[in-house]
Amino acid sequence: MTLARQFAGNLLQFSRQTFSAAAREQARTAIIDTLGVTLAGGVQDGADRLRRVIVPSAAMGKSRVFGTDLRLNALDAALLNGVSSHLLDFDDSNSWLHGHISVAVLPALLALADERDLNGDAVIRAYLAGYETAVRMGKAVSPFQYRHGWHPTTTVGIFAGAAACAVLLELTEQQTATALSICASLASGIKSNFGSQTKALAVGQAARSAVMAVRLAQEGFSAGQMAFEHHHGYFNVFNGSDNVAPEALTDPWQETPSILDVEKSNNFKYFSCCYAILSPVDGVLALREQTGLRPDQVESIEVQVHPIRFPHINIPQPENPLAGKFSLHYCVARAFVAGTLTLDDFIDSARFADPATQALMHRVTLGCHNGETTHTAEVTLIATDGRQFHQHIAGARGSNADNPLPEGLLAEKFLDCAGRVLSPEIARAFYERLLQDDYS
Amino acid sequence: MTLARQFAGNLLQFSRQTFSAAAREQARTAIIDTLGVTLAGGVQDGADRLRRVIVPSAAMGKSRVFGTDLRLNALDAALLNGVSSHLLDFDDSNSWLHGHISVAVLPALLALADERDLNGDAVIRAYLAGYETAVRMGKAVSPFQYRHGWHPTTTVGIFAGAAACAVLLELTEQQTATALSICASLASGIKSNFGSQTKALAVGQAARSAVMAVRLAQEGFSAGQMAFEHHHGYFNVFNGSDNVAPEALTDPWQETPSILDVEKSNNFKYFSCCYAILSPVDGVLALREQTGLRPDQVESIEVQVHPIRFPHINIPQPENPLAGKFSLHYCVARAFVAGTLTLDDFIDSARFADPATQALMHRVTLGCHNGETTHTAEVTLIATDGRQFHQHIAGARGSNADNPLPEGLLAEKFLDCAGRVLSPEIARAFYERLLQDDYS
Repeated sequence: MTLARQFAGNLLQFSRQTFSAAAREQARTAIIDTLGVTLAGGVQDGADRLRRVIVPSAAMGKSRVFGTDLRLNALDAALLNGVSSHLLDFDDSNSWLHGHISVAVLPALLALADERDLNGDAVIRAYLAGYETAVRMGKAVSPFQYRHGWHPTTTVGIFAGAAACAVLLELTEQQTATALSICASLASGIKSNFGSQTKALAVGQAARSAVMAVRLAQEGFSAGQMAFEHHHGYFNVFNGSDNVAPEALTDPWQETPSILDVEKSNNFKYFSCCYAILSPVDGVLALREQTGLRPDQVESIEVQVHPIRFPHINIPQPENPLAGKFSLHYCVARAFVAGTLTLDDFIDSARFADPATQALMHRVTLGCHNGETTHTAEVTLIATDGRQFHQHIAGARGSNADNPLPEGLLAEKFLDCAGRVLSPEIARAFYERLLQDDYS
Repeated sequence: MTLARQFAGNLLQFSRQTFSAAAREQARTAIIDTLGVTLAGGVQDGADRLRRVIVPSAAMGKSRVFGTDLRLNALDAALLNGVSSHLLDFDDSNSWLHGHISVAVLPALLALADERDLNGDAVIRAYLAGYETAVRMGKAVSPFQYRHGWHPTTTVGIFAGAAACAVLLELTEQQTATALSICASLASGIKSNFGSQTKALAVGQAARSAVMAVRLAQEGFSAGQMAFEHHHGYFNVFNGSDNVAPEALTDPWQETPSILDVEKSNNFKYFSCCYAILSPVDGVLALREQTGLRPDQVESIEVQVHPIRFPHINIPQPENPLAGKFSLHYCVARAFVAGTLTLDDFIDSARFADPATQALMHRVTLGCHNGETTHTAEVTLIATDGRQFHQHIAGARGSNADNPLPEGLLAEKFLDCAGRVLSPEIARAFYERLLQDDYS
């Protein structure tokens, strides 16, 4: 039996289980959080530019385009919502995938659900199947892909999007295998476009491709039988044979959904920068409160992170607010100056150019620690009077059970995000409605 | 200056020259040949399945969809025509790219030209710029990509499509650099889907992505400044630093267009199988004529090709006629039985299942020779009576100046292809019109 067929069989069997309330609750939280950031993303400059290109080419349809009043066909809605969902880089992420699961799954899934008038229960089931696929594909290929420079949210996430759509549309095992194999030729995305709108574009492209692959499979379009395990297949080409663990896909899938994994849970962002920057910023904010120092009383701030985190957040001089999301230096300086980080710190040029922030930014340095876990950060602050302060951070809030997300933080985030499109009252009503079982 | 900016500058300067009649003639021949195979591809099963998915999602527009009466928006026309152009795998190819240049360039280019009512001269200029980009990107990255399992027609060709569109729409240097950088995150395609409709799907996807990238760049969408040379950029991620020759892009581009390169010219197919199979089949046909043997008088046929050709044509038992395009064994057997290869040998299940062909196919073997050039083939035929015959083939017809394509062969091919959609009279009139300067 081909790998794609085993993969498809495991996926469909997994999807047919009765999911626990805990798993459904996790899915709901992720869906609400993703809708919030997609709404806010939909009114950003990048979403607007993309709509000017795509909307004139798109047939109308039943699928919502978040942040607008448009309803388009599912393919283009998946593209537009995929981009909006990730433009702010404020969406959830997972360390198995080394990327963002919900934006890989939901834009494709919701576009098809709208088109087919499918309800919340079908969406939750499909989401959990997509999430499971992202984690298992992540275990199979992502540690290498992430280090190598691929963007696993898209190069791996495309399979999660297709898996969710295949479950939603009740594809056969063979159709599902074909859809996954088609995706092997459509997977794309590299990290050199991080810090630009093209990072989000690749997310939208993956979502559109996932919908297209599933539809093509339904129509009997053909793909290679051994798209994954072939010597010129996805595994060898993207990873090389030494860097793949296909048994994560081919061994029977446990019934307990990976979304309940306490060690590597779905991580929600409370600052809209790269997830790897959250724990350093928490450290900086703790030192700010503890020392009471003003920015001009800080001689230097030195941050150490795990070596895997270093390369893509080591951007001492970002060129604009959006690029600042990946600049440890900017985020640390801005947080110390302002006492927090907000969406506007990565949108508003005036905040970005704030002289106190820019001045402090040049006194921030980034290095690597020798710690075993990737979540930890060490922050050392030296004051102008020579005093030295240190803070160890075990991980971002919400990244483990000992350090839960403060209650209400995600509700607050949703209302802030949705409030950029809707009135506060409507945003709150929308939120309340999403908390109900059926949020179609 | 960034690599993308140097690349864009060289490209635009190249495009502004006065092209020689010889270069324009080569371009015209390629455009006609590609239109022919696109027309024939447009009435294949794969094109039909794809249209069932795409057309309901696509806004109408001015861009022709070949093989149909549809006129759609440029993005979706590029996708549909891109797939149709390559579904039969009957389109031209080039050894610098290790892939198919015209289908990487023309579907995107013609879709935009239709939309903007641009004429033959603008199309030829943009085509030559796209061709040049494909060759230079090919020199920079393709030898490795091809061996590694990438599909250079799409992973490299996407840049050629974008380059041609950027020239057609007269983008600025910065916009062109941005479009190329966007493509770095949209490049996809692997060889394990060869022999299936997904191979052509990736060509259409690249064409659509090229149009989208150029449009987004015009709208000011942002991309990474160092999308190519970044440590997580296109070069390192797809190739690794030891397998890239970026000077092919960054050194000033010679004015003489690469389409006039006599050593590695644009190769036109006269049989609709993998180009690597043409010279072995020429050898088999020569032995067939020379020996006068019937298939049942053949004990075995042994073919040797260059090792780089071996992996993807070594398919002893293809599953269907389309997969037969990449099966040296099927093509050799079918050609010996029928005396030639036609389009229908790769479409018609009855021809594919022909008992004499299937029986002989199992007596065909493929190995590697030690020759230095990739075009040569050695064919050895052993008769049932023990006699042994050998044929050395220096290369497919048209692959070098000593072995030109027989006159009229491409005209015949065009009329055969176009005749699958148009009446013979209309196909001929279309051909005559394409031979004129302005074939808009």
